[in-house]
Amino acid sequence: MSQASASQSSFRAVDLIRKKRDGGALSDAEIEYLIAGCTDGSIPDYQLSSWLMAVVLRSMTREETAALTNAMLHSGEVLDLSSLPAKKVDKHSTGGVGDKTSLVLAPLVAAGGLYVPMISGRGLGHTGGTLDKLESIPEFRVGLTVPEFERILKACGCSMIGQTEQIAPADRKLYALRDVTATVESPYLICASIMSKKLAEGTDALVLDVKTGTGAFMKKEEDAVFLAELMVETGERMGKQMVALITDMNQPLGRMVGNALEVQECIEVLHGGGPADLRDLCFELAAWMFYLGGACETVAAGKQLSEQIIASGKAFKRFRQMVELQGGDVGVIDDPTRLPRTKLTVEVPSTRAGYVSAILCEQVGTACVMLGGGRERKEDSVDPAVGIVIHKKIGDNVAQGESLCTIHCHSDAQAARVKTMLEESYQITPSALAQKPLLVHRVIYKGEH
Amino acid sequence: MSQASASQSSFRAVDLIRKKRDGGALSDAEIEYLIAGCTDGSIPDYQLSSWLMAVVLRSMTREETAALTNAMLHSGEVLDLSSLPAKKVDKHSTGGVGDKTSLVLAPLVAAGGLYVPMISGRGLGHTGGTLDKLESIPEFRVGLTVPEFERILKACGCSMIGQTEQIAPADRKLYALRDVTATVESPYLICASIMSKKLAEGTDALVLDVKTGTGAFMKKEEDAVFLAELMVETGERMGKQMVALITDMNQPLGRMVGNALEVQECIEVLHGGGPADLRDLCFELAAWMFYLGGACETVAAGKQLSEQIIASGKAFKRFRQMVELQGGDVGVIDDPTRLPRTKLTVEVPSTRAGYVSAILCEQVGTACVMLGGGRERKEDSVDPAVGIVIHKKIGDNVAQGESLCTIHCHSDAQAARVKTMLEESYQITPSALAQKPLLVHRVIYKGEH
Repeated sequence: MSQASASQSSFRAVDLIRKKRDGGALSDAEIEYLIAGCTDGSIPDYQLSSWLMAVVLRSMTREETAALTNAMLHSGEVLDLSSLPAKKVDKHSTGGVGDKTSLVLAPLVAAGGLYVPMISGRGLGHTGGTLDKLESIPEFRVGLTVPEFERILKACGCSMIGQTEQIAPADRKLYALRDVTATVESPYLICASIMSKKLAEGTDALVLDVKTGTGAFMKKEEDAVFLAELMVETGERMGKQMVALITDMNQPLGRMVGNALEVQECIEVLHGGGPADLRDLCFELAAWMFYLGGACETVAAGKQLSEQIIASGKAFKRFRQMVELQGGDVGVIDDPTRLPRTKLTVEVPSTRAGYVSAILCEQVGTACVMLGGGRERKEDSVDPAVGIVIHKKIGDNVAQGESLCTIHCHSDAQAARVKTMLEESYQITPSALAQKPLLVHRVIYKGEH
Repeated sequence: MSQASASQSSFRAVDLIRKKRDGGALSDAEIEYLIAGCTDGSIPDYQLSSWLMAVVLRSMTREETAALTNAMLHSGEVLDLSSLPAKKVDKHSTGGVGDKTSLVLAPLVAAGGLYVPMISGRGLGHTGGTLDKLESIPEFRVGLTVPEFERILKACGCSMIGQTEQIAPADRKLYALRDVTATVESPYLICASIMSKKLAEGTDALVLDVKTGTGAFMKKEEDAVFLAELMVETGERMGKQMVALITDMNQPLGRMVGNALEVQECIEVLHGGGPADLRDLCFELAAWMFYLGGACETVAAGKQLSEQIIASGKAFKRFRQMVELQGGDVGVIDDPTRLPRTKLTVEVPSTRAGYVSAILCEQVGTACVMLGGGRERKEDSVDPAVGIVIHKKIGDNVAQGESLCTIHCHSDAQAARVKTMLEESYQITPSALAQKPLLVHRVIYKGEH
């Protein structure tokens, strides 16, 4: 796609802002003009931010959303992985607490014969980030060049890196601007931001894990469904195979929250263990990746395939190989007790007996950030060792004084900062719930499966 | 009023933008923070423009509008004219075509014993500006210093200048930003912009001439009334005596459109002549200025007073004195044929016979701008001599081939550019209108008059 040059066009940014302000829909060419001007700097930030606010308050059509995604995608380099001999599939999660499936999925799906070119992000707000988790493996390099990325992808079927300067530069610029102008919360802008980055990877199919609940960015399921449908439609308009799973984030996924702790839990899953909810979600997402990638006839068959590959040890081997190829210390993969750890652990006992009826999951994520496991400001560094191990989940019975979770920290003072917060994030009721929450609330897919 | 320093505050611009985006009302302190940050540059333009767009789409409360006006007013110098021995009154018009009452009102009201400290603007869009008109008087200086302004005000009761660097700098900055971010059209922002400048003059009372019709910025009367009521309430909240007249702008006011031509027509009015509609509006507005300034018991008495002062020649003398004190060539005031003139005039004949039922007044204003009488771009200079003399107004009978108006221009090519446009701006119907349009549609005033 050729990109319109902002300076040669007959459009004026102010007219396009006015059109959106008055509820109109911009044409593909008009959106290309704005994004070209964003990328080359010819349209000043104050015009972009005014347009962004108009989008937040006036929304966009599906056509505009696809045009925006397309323009942002082509604002930089788009990887051409067509020389790879099998389908490229990827997964994207909208972010949650303890949400670590990427580290299992990439090697699992690669071991099943597909390619997983995964470009991931860092922790955002109360949620963790795949890159921060990977960097708790000593020497692991997430900042590969594109040729290195392609070489590793060819060699082991998967590679996991961060967004480069060359990929979707318009998204990077707009994202920074949205953050300081209260224009983050628009499903249209969120969709274009996610999809432009993911499609720049050169993937053929994309499985979206759209989180909803107390620990998700979208607390309301209807908002999650709206975004999911928008992303599926946008991807399909751009010729990609798409599915979205609306999944539960009313409690941390698995038992570990924190960078090295989460790597440890992923290694457990790759070895055939790990907590049931994390395993189930990994198999569910992998099944869809296999199905969309053509590695199986049905999603159910994809699930069986996933279980077989895990049981065979091939997924773990593939993970180890990827860590090695990306410069990481495989010693810690073979012996996860060598991962960064704190010397101190502090229990959070329950003040009463009963059943866990709810967990304020965002608070658990925030507690981990406060321990140093995430960033309060962009420039903060992340502590790989700290975190929280969850013992009680929704529906579990708990005795008075029994530990709800364990804080991994460096000092009692550090633990004191988050202990009450964690204790208060648990709601304990006298009687058990009628049923445990569903892990997958809904599947958005147009077709048979 | 002390101004909050943006850098010392605990507010964050992004939170205030979000609050407005979500339909909330900002507190006085929050608005002061934004305007202080605008003035000292600590809040970047991209945050201001995003807030401006949120205001356009979410509106403001009356309290916010007053707080914004107050903060913008106090972003710079506020004149203290309390040493003057009589009330200070001023008039502001929202702008129209042939709208030249300021040049009559300032000397007329000054001759009646009140002070008129008038800070005016330049032509905007299709409308003329008082400063451009005054500058068609050779050597007339509109760029006085504040001490010069006060000295002339004391000496002759009126002075007319442009906005200085020191007056409402936040408005100047926001106005420039609004112009390029499609955030001009908000009655709240328009109100704060107008009122902050007008109140910085140190006036006690303000008569608003809010135009509505085909030649006004507010084509719909309801929009004009909304803005008028907002400005009246805002001024009253700030302790000023306020009235707003909603007046007709469905055709040019008077017969002259163009800078020197309009000065010439004002001199006619000051000599007791001039077209009826212009005279009537001047007397109506002057009556309110006298009434609010305490120079008469009723508005009706103010009208009589105005007529007497014009008839006595005192208003003309006062105008001549002001021109002299501001460095202008009084020779042209004494002999208006010496005002800048074009050598060429071109008639615009009617293509059919009938009655003028409507005039697309904005088109007449635009024709004058295209002749060089206004600015197409900010940096353009203005030609004082060009313009249009209107012969036929709404309700007038016209024969086929009879001149509708005369173009004052420098070449036939220049005339050709606007001739068809002017001809087409006239709607001619076979039968006469039932009644001519009212000059004053409505008076917005809380109290007896």
